[in-house]
Amino acid sequence: MEFRIEKDTMGEVQVPVNAYYGAQTQRSIENFKIAQDINKMPKEIIKAFAYLKKAAALTNLEAGVLPKEKCDLIAQVCDEILEGKLDNEFPLVVWQTGSGTQSNMNVNEVVAYRAHVIHGGKLTDKDKFVHPNDDVNKSQSSNDTFPTAMHIAAYKMLVETTIPGVKKLRDTLAKKAEAFKHVVKIGRTHFMDATPLTLGQEISGYVAQLDHGLRAINNSLAHLSELALGGTAVGTGINTPKGYSESVAGNIAKLTGLPFITAPNKFEALAAHDAIVEAHGALKTVAVSLMKIANDVRMLSSGPRAGIGEIHIPDNEPGSSIMPGKVNPTQCEALTMIAAQVMGNDVAISIGGSNGHFELNVFKPVMIYNFLHSARLIGEGCVSFNDKCAEGIEPIEANIRKHVENSLMLVTALNTKIGYYKAAEIAQKAHKEGTTLKEMAVKLGYVTPEQFDEWVVPGNMVGEIK
Amino acid sequence: MEFRIEKDTMGEVQVPVNAYYGAQTQRSIENFKIAQDINKMPKEIIKAFAYLKKAAALTNLEAGVLPKEKCDLIAQVCDEILEGKLDNEFPLVVWQTGSGTQSNMNVNEVVAYRAHVIHGGKLTDKDKFVHPNDDVNKSQSSNDTFPTAMHIAAYKMLVETTIPGVKKLRDTLAKKAEAFKHVVKIGRTHFMDATPLTLGQEISGYVAQLDHGLRAINNSLAHLSELALGGTAVGTGINTPKGYSESVAGNIAKLTGLPFITAPNKFEALAAHDAIVEAHGALKTVAVSLMKIANDVRMLSSGPRAGIGEIHIPDNEPGSSIMPGKVNPTQCEALTMIAAQVMGNDVAISIGGSNGHFELNVFKPVMIYNFLHSARLIGEGCVSFNDKCAEGIEPIEANIRKHVENSLMLVTALNTKIGYYKAAEIAQKAHKEGTTLKEMAVKLGYVTPEQFDEWVVPGNMVGEIK
Amino acid sequence: MEFRIEKDTMGEVQVPVNAYYGAQTQRSIENFKIAQDINKMPKEIIKAFAYLKKAAALTNLEAGVLPKEKCDLIAQVCDEILEGKLDNEFPLVVWQTGSGTQSNMNVNEVVAYRAHVIHGGKLTDKDKFVHPNDDVNKSQSSNDTFPTAMHIAAYKMLVETTIPGVKKLRDTLAKKAEAFKHVVKIGRTHFMDATPLTLGQEISGYVAQLDHGLRAINNSLAHLSELALGGTAVGTGINTPKGYSESVAGNIAKLTGLPFITAPNKFEALAAHDAIVEAHGALKTVAVSLMKIANDVRMLSSGPRAGIGEIHIPDNEPGSSIMPGKVNPTQCEALTMIAAQVMGNDVAISIGGSNGHFELNVFKPVMIYNFLHSARLIGEGCVSFNDKCAEGIEPIEANIRKHVENSLMLVTALNTKIGYYKAAEIAQKAHKEGTTLKEMAVKLGYVTPEQFDEWVVPGNMVGEIK
Amino acid sequence: MEFRIEKDTMGEVQVPVNAYYGAQTQRSIENFKIAQDINKMPKEIIKAFAYLKKAAALTNLEAGVLPKEKCDLIAQVCDEILEGKLDNEFPLVVWQTGSGTQSNMNVNEVVAYRAHVIHGGKLTDKDKFVHPNDDVNKSQSSNDTFPTAMHIAAYKMLVETTIPGVKKLRDTLAKKAEAFKHVVKIGRTHFMDATPLTLGQEISGYVAQLDHGLRAINNSLAHLSELALGGTAVGTGINTPKGYSESVAGNIAKLTGLPFITAPNKFEALAAHDAIVEAHGALKTVAVSLMKIANDVRMLSSGPRAGIGEIHIPDNEPGSSIMPGKVNPTQCEALTMIAAQVMGNDVAISIGGSNGHFELNVFKPVMIYNFLHSARLIGEGCVSFNDKCAEGIEPIEANIRKHVENSLMLVTALNTKIGYYKAAEIAQKAHKEGTTLKEMAVKLGYVTPEQFDEWVVPGNMVGEIK
Repeated sequence: MEFRIEKDTMGEVQVPVNAYYGAQTQRSIENFKIAQDINKMPKEIIKAFAYLKKAAALTNLEAGVLPKEKCDLIAQVCDEILEGKLDNEFPLVVWQTGSGTQSNMNVNEVVAYRAHVIHGGKLTDKDKFVHPNDDVNKSQSSNDTFPTAMHIAAYKMLVETTIPGVKKLRDTLAKKAEAFKHVVKIGRTHFMDATPLTLGQEISGYVAQLDHGLRAINNSLAHLSELALGGTAVGTGINTPKGYSESVAGNIAKLTGLPFITAPNKFEALAAHDAIVEAHGALKTVAVSLMKIANDVRMLSSGPRAGIGEIHIPDNEPGSSIMPGKVNPTQCEALTMIAAQVMGNDVAISIGGSNGHFELNVFKPVMIYNFLHSARLIGEGCVSFNDKCAEGIEPIEANIRKHVENSLMLVTALNTKIGYYKAAEIAQKAHKEGTTLKEMAVKLGYVTPEQFDEWVVPGNMVGEIK
Repeated sequence: MEFRIEKDTMGEVQVPVNAYYGAQTQRSIENFKIAQDINKMPKEIIKAFAYLKKAAALTNLEAGVLPKEKCDLIAQVCDEILEGKLDNEFPLVVWQTGSGTQSNMNVNEVVAYRAHVIHGGKLTDKDKFVHPNDDVNKSQSSNDTFPTAMHIAAYKMLVETTIPGVKKLRDTLAKKAEAFKHVVKIGRTHFMDATPLTLGQEISGYVAQLDHGLRAINNSLAHLSELALGGTAVGTGINTPKGYSESVAGNIAKLTGLPFITAPNKFEALAAHDAIVEAHGALKTVAVSLMKIANDVRMLSSGPRAGIGEIHIPDNEPGSSIMPGKVNPTQCEALTMIAAQVMGNDVAISIGGSNGHFELNVFKPVMIYNFLHSARLIGEGCVSFNDKCAEGIEPIEANIRKHVENSLMLVTALNTKIGYYKAAEIAQKAHKEGTTLKEMAVKLGYVTPEQFDEWVVPGNMVGEIK
Repeated sequence: MEFRIEKDTMGEVQVPVNAYYGAQTQRSIENFKIAQDINKMPKEIIKAFAYLKKAAALTNLEAGVLPKEKCDLIAQVCDEILEGKLDNEFPLVVWQTGSGTQSNMNVNEVVAYRAHVIHGGKLTDKDKFVHPNDDVNKSQSSNDTFPTAMHIAAYKMLVETTIPGVKKLRDTLAKKAEAFKHVVKIGRTHFMDATPLTLGQEISGYVAQLDHGLRAINNSLAHLSELALGGTAVGTGINTPKGYSESVAGNIAKLTGLPFITAPNKFEALAAHDAIVEAHGALKTVAVSLMKIANDVRMLSSGPRAGIGEIHIPDNEPGSSIMPGKVNPTQCEALTMIAAQVMGNDVAISIGGSNGHFELNVFKPVMIYNFLHSARLIGEGCVSFNDKCAEGIEPIEANIRKHVENSLMLVTALNTKIGYYKAAEIAQKAHKEGTTLKEMAVKLGYVTPEQFDEWVVPGNMVGEIK
Repeated sequence: MEFRIEKDTMGEVQVPVNAYYGAQTQRSIENFKIAQDINKMPKEIIKAFAYLKKAAALTNLEAGVLPKEKCDLIAQVCDEILEGKLDNEFPLVVWQTGSGTQSNMNVNEVVAYRAHVIHGGKLTDKDKFVHPNDDVNKSQSSNDTFPTAMHIAAYKMLVETTIPGVKKLRDTLAKKAEAFKHVVKIGRTHFMDATPLTLGQEISGYVAQLDHGLRAINNSLAHLSELALGGTAVGTGINTPKGYSESVAGNIAKLTGLPFITAPNKFEALAAHDAIVEAHGALKTVAVSLMKIANDVRMLSSGPRAGIGEIHIPDNEPGSSIMPGKVNPTQCEALTMIAAQVMGNDVAISIGGSNGHFELNVFKPVMIYNFLHSARLIGEGCVSFNDKCAEGIEPIEANIRKHVENSLMLVTALNTKIGYYKAAEIAQKAHKEGTTLKEMAVKLGYVTPEQFDEWVVPGNMVGEIK
C-alpha cells in the first residue's frame, strides 16, 4: 500500500494515500487491533455524526464563527456520508477510547479532508482548507458529540426499525386474536390441563404484552430526545457561542425530522447514559415478552404426532439434515435467541452505565453498540417472525377439540354447584380410573347426566368474548 | 409439639395444634425445605393478600354470593393481618409452587380458621364456619390473586419507600448543587484533568439523573396499577359473578388508597409479568445512577492525603480494625453494593418473566421476591446514604483551589484565540518541563502575560450558572 | 430498653445493657437501617469468624503475643458461637461497609465482652479483660479476616450442602437411567418429533450434566481453599508475627477439617474475590443444568390429558385453589425459580468482583451473601426436588408407546436404504395425508411391507445400550 | 443477478448462478433477514465445520460407507475452506434455526457443489457427483455436527487467542512486579490512604489474578474437548457405522492437533451446552479480573496534576478533540468495555444454555456467537492493553514518595507499641490539625522523636519482599 504523511499534535503518521481520514484515525487503527473485522463502530453512529456535524456547521455559520464556504463544504460531505458514499472511510472499532473520541476525530478528518478535495485541494497538501478540529469540530468536543450521536442513532433505530417491527407483529397477532376468538381450547397452567379459553383470548394476551412493550419504548424516547451537544468538554459549554445548544438541537431536529431538544442538564448528558440504560430496559421488557410468545407458539405447534399440535405454523425449510421431512419452528428459535442476546446486552449496558466517573462516562461505544444491536434485532426479528411464522398461524381444530373434550378441569364449572371438594373428588377419581368426568360425576351421585350437560359446557367457561 | 388433624382434597395432615393455618400450608412446609429461615414469602405479599381477600369478600357480598356474616369475619381477620397480629401464621417460603398457590392457600386457611375461632369455634372442629376455598377464595384463583398481590405489594413499596427515598436524596443533592454553584473546581474526564466546572454543576448532574430515574419509576406505575383479579384460573373469569373484576379492583383501590384498576387483558395479567419486568428496569436504571453517584462521592472524598480530597463527607464510625483513625466512605459502599444487587435481581426477574408458558407464568414468587428486595434496598439505601452522607457533603476549598490552579487543561480557553495545535504545544511542553501554563505560553511567544491573564480565567470557563 | 455506655475511638455510644456487642456494632445498627429484618449478615459468616478468631488466638499464643488465659477465653467464646449460643448478638446487615469491618468488629466485641463476663467481669465495666482490637483482632485486620471468613463459609457450604445435594439428585437420576434403559420412547428436537431413544438414555444426559457440574464445583475449591489471613491491612502482613500466615491457616484447617492453606499472594486475596466469582460460575453452570432438567421433567409429565404425559411424578399437594383435583409439577417450579435466582446472583457477584479498587475490594458482603444464597438454594433445592419428585419418576408406558409408534421420524431409518430425499417424500406425504409411514412407504413403492418391518424398528434405532 | 435453479425436499429455489451453495442456504437467506450485514455465523465455526467434514469423510471411508474418490474431493474442498478460499460462500447469520442446521447444510452444499465442480461438473448440473446430505453429511446430523463445531471453534480460540493473550499480559505484569518490588508506595483501601506496600506487590496481585484465571480457563478445556459427533439426530448415533464416534474424534484431533475425544454421553452433548456455559464462566472471571486491573491502572495514572499520578502509562494518541495536550488511558477504557461486554455475553449464554429442551438445545448459534466474541475480545484486548499500555508502565517516583511520606496510616506501626486507641488519637488529631504524624505523636507524649523514627519506617511496613 502507498502512504502519505499526516500530522497531529503528537507527530507524523503514515496514512493510506487515498484514505480521506488522517493521523488520529490511523493511530486508532494501529492502537486497537481488537476484533477489527467484526466490531466496526456501527454505521448508524457514523450517520448520526453526519447529521450533527452538518447541524453544528449551520449553527456555527449563524453564530458567525464559521465562514459560509466552509459550512457549505462540511454540509456537502455530511450529505455524502448520509448517502453511503464514504462508507469505507470509517474503519474504527468499538473497542477504542471509551469517549468515542477517535470516531469523532475520524469523522472530523474525513469531513475536513474530503471537503478539501472538493474544494480543489489534494490529500497530500500539508495544510487543508478545512481543519478537522478548528472547523469541523468547532464548538464541539467528543464528549458532547458522541453522546449526541448515540441519542440520534438510538432514537432513529427505535422509531424506524424497532417500533415498526414490533407493531407489525402486534397487528398480526391482533388479527389472529380476532379471527380465532371463538375457537374454544384447553387452557394450560403449570404445563397442566386447566379450564378452557379461546385461542383468540390466548393470543390477545400476547397483543397486550406487545402493547405494553410499545408503550414502554415510547416512554423512553423522552430522555433519548435530549441532546448533549453544546456541553463540550465537561458540560459547561466552553468554547461555544451564545445560544449554540438550542440552535444546534433545533438544526438536528430539522435534519432528522425527529423531535430532538437540547438536554436541560449537560453534566448528566455527558457523565451518565441513563437514557440508554432506561430505553434498553424497555427493549429488554419486549425481549422478555417475545421469548414468552415464541415459546408458546413453538409448543402449541409441537408434534406433529407426539406433541401438543394445536396450531399450524408455516413450513419454511427442511428442518433436518438427517431426519427427512422434519419441519421445525425455526422463526421461534431465531426470536428466542434474539431475546437471550438482548437480555445479555442489557447487562453489558448496565455495567457500562454504572461505571461512569466524574464528568464523563467512558463506556460510550460499548453501550451504544449493544443498544443498536438489540434495537435492530428486535425490530428485524419481529418482522421475520411475523412474515414467516405469525401470519401463517392457523388452528388445528381436530386436536384442539380432542384436548378440550378430554379435559378433567372442566370440573371447575361444578365448584359453584357442588363445592370444591366434591368436584375435586370427581376429577381425581376420573383421572385414576380413566373415565370421563361425566361418567364419574354421575357414578358418584353428585349430579345427574342432565345437570352435567347443562353445567359443564366448555363454550360457557370462557367468559364474555369481546 | 402438639398437633391437630386437618384435611384437604388429598387427605389428612398433622398441623401444629395452635396454628391458624391448615393442611395445605403444612404440606408446603414439608415439601419445600429450602432456605426456610431466610427466604420467607415477603410480608408485603401477605399484607397485599389481606387487602385483596377483604376486597373480594366485599365484592362477593355485593354480588350476593357471600353472606354478610362471613364477609364481616373475613374482613376482620384481614384487618388483623394488616395490623401484624398474625405474622407468625405465614411460614411458607419463596421456593414453592411458581404460581404462589400455596401462599394463597396459606392466607385462605388462616383467614378461614381464625374467622371460625372469632365466630366461636375451635381449631379442632372438623368443619369450620368459614371455608378456605369456598368462602375466602370465592370468585378467585391463585392464578389471579397472586399476581394481584404482586402488583399491590410492588406499587405500595414503590410509592411508600422507593420513591420517597430517592426523592429525599435528590432534594438534598439539589440543595447542595445550589449551595456549591460557585465553587469552581477542576473537571475530570477519563480520570484525567479537564476544563473546570463548579461543584454545584457537577452535583446538578446527579440531580438530573435521579429526576430521570423518578420519572422512569413513575412511568412504570401505569402497568402495575392493572390488577389480574377477576381472571381466576386462566384469565376467562370462570366462577366470578358479573361485574366482579371492576368492583373488586375498585375495592382494592379504596382500601389501599392507590389508583388500582382492573387489567384490561386478564390473559396477559396471569401469563406474563412484564409489568414487574418493566418496573424493575426502572429500578435498575436508578441503581445504575446510584452506583455512579456513590462512586463519584467516594472518589472525590478520597484521601485524606494521597487522594483527590475535594469534598468532605461525615465520619460515621471508625473505619478500620487495624489502622487507627481511618474513616471510610461506608455509605457509598452500602449503596454501591445495593446497586450490584439490584442489577443482579434484574436478571433473575427477566429470566423469570421470559419463562412463563401458556396461560400462567410460574415464576411469580421469585419475581416479586427480587422486585420487593430491590425496591426496598433502593428506598432505604437512599435514605441511609442521604442522612449519613449526602447531607454532610462539604467542599474542601483548599484542595479544590490547588487542583484547578495547577491544571494544564485551562489551555482550552486559548483554542479560540491561537488554535488547537498551538494550545496543545503549550500544554504538552508545560507538562514535560513541569512549568505553569502561563510560563510556557509566554515562553513560546504565543501570548503575552496580559493576554494569558485575561483569557485564562477558570471562573469564566464554567459557562452560565443558573 | 435499658442501655449502657460503650466507647470506641470516636466516642461514647449507648448500647442495650445486656448486649455482648459494643460501640462499633451499635454504630452500624444506627448507620445502616437497610432491610434490617431480612438481610442479616449470613450466619455462616459469623460461624466462619468463630473458627478464624479461635485459630488466630491459638497462633498468637504460639507466637508468644497473646497470653494463654486470654487465648483460652477467646477459644471458649468462639465455641459458644459455633454452638449457636450467641446467635442474637450479631444483628448487622449485609448493607454496611464493603470490607465487612463492622461485622469483624461485631465479632471482636462479642468475643471480648463475653470473655470478660466469663472471666468474672461485668458488661458495664469500663475496661474489659479482653480487648476487641488488641486481643481478639490481634495480628488481624478486617481486610484479611472478612475474606478468610468468606472462603471458610463458601467452602463449607459447598462441601456440606451444595455438593451432597447435587450428588443425591445425580444418584437418583442415575438409578432411573438404569431402570428405564430399555424404555423406547420418541425423541424430540425443536419440540418436534424426532427419532427414538430410551427414557434411560434421556435421563443419562441429565446425569452427565450433573457430573460435569460437580466436577466444575470441585475445580473451584482450589482457589477457595486459599486464605487471606496474615495479609492484614493491605496484604503486606503488617503487625503479624513471623510464620503467622501458615500457622493460622493450619489451625483453621484443623478446626474445620477442611484443606485450607495460606494464600500464596495476599494482595490478590484482599483486593479481588475472583475465587468467589469463579466458584459461583460453577454454581451458575449447575443452575443452568437444573433449569434444563426440571423443564424436561415438567414437560414430560404434562397433561394429564392434553400434554405429553410420558412420565408420572408424585402428587404432593392439591395444585389449585379453584381447579379441583389439579396436581402441578411444583418441585420443578421451585427448582427453576432457584435457577433464575442463581443466574441473577451471578451478575451481582460479577459486578461486585469487578469493582474492587487498589488494595481492597469493598463489595465483600454482597458477594458472599449472594454466593451463600446460591450454594444453599442449589443444595437444598436439589434435595427437595430429589425427595419429592425425582425419586418418584415413573414412565407412563401407554403414552410412550403411542407416541413412538405414531412417529413419522422413524423414516430416518430408511436414509441408508433409499436415500434422504425419498425418505423425506414418504414422511411429508404421510403427514399430509394422515397415514402411517408404512402405508405411505409402500404406496410410493419405495419399500415392500416386509422391508419396512425389517428396517423400521424403533428398538433398533436407539444405538447400543450400555 | 443471474440465477440457477436448485432443489431440496421442499422444492425449487433460485440461487445466484455462481454461488457454490444451494437451495437450503438460499432459503435461510430469505427466511432470516436479520442483521445480515453484521451477524454472520462466525468464520471460526465455518472452519471448524471444515475440519469435521473432512474428518467424517475419512472415517466414512475407513468404515467403507464412502468411496475414496468422494472422500478425497470432500477433503480437498475442506482444505480450501480452511485456506479461506471460499469465505464468501457462507452468508448465513446467527439468527437462524437454533440447531444451526442451516449452517450445517450451507457447508454440506458448498462442499458438495464445489467438489462437483472440481470433479469436472457444472453448478447447473441437476445431479451433482457429491450429494450434500447423502455424502457430505453422511453419518452426521446437524444436531451432532453443530455442537462439534462449537467445541472445535471454542477450544481453538481459547488456546490460540485467549490464553496466549492473557498470558502475554500476565508475563509483562510479572516483569513489572519484579522491577518495582522495592518501590514503597502508599496503600489504598476504600479509596482511602492505608498502610504502605510496594508497587511490585500491588502488581503481583494482578499477576495472581491472571494466574488463577488461566487455571480456570484451562480447567474448562476438559469438557470442551468432548465432541458430540456420532450422536447424530438425538444422541443414539442412528445411521452411523460401528466405531464411528471414536474414529471421527480421533481424526479431528489429528487434523487440529488438539486433544479432542468423543463425548462419553452424547445425549448431554446435544441437549445441553454446559461446556460452553462453564468455559464462559471462566472467561467472565478473567473479565472481572481485567476490569479490576485496568481500573487500577487508570486511577494510578490519573492526573497529571489533580489525580493520583503514581504511575506513567504511554501516550498513544491525542486524547481530546477540544482539550489540547490531553492524553487519556484509552487502553484501559477498551479493556473495561470488553469486560462489560463479556459479562453481558455471559448472561446471554446462560439463558441460552438453560433453555434447551428434550434432546436438543436450540440456542446453539447465539451461545457460540457470544462465546467466540468474548474469547477473542479477551485475547486481543489483553494483547492490545499489553503492547500499548502495560509494557510502558513506569512509577512516577516523586509523587509516590510524597504520598507515602504524608500518610497518616503509617501510625499503624505504633499499634503494637502503644495500642490501637492511642495510635488512633494521634492520627485523628494530626488529620484535624494538619500536622505530621511525628509532630502529633511527640506532642501527645506517646513516643519520643527517636522512637518514632525507629518504629515508623515505611520500608519496614511492607513485609518480606520475595
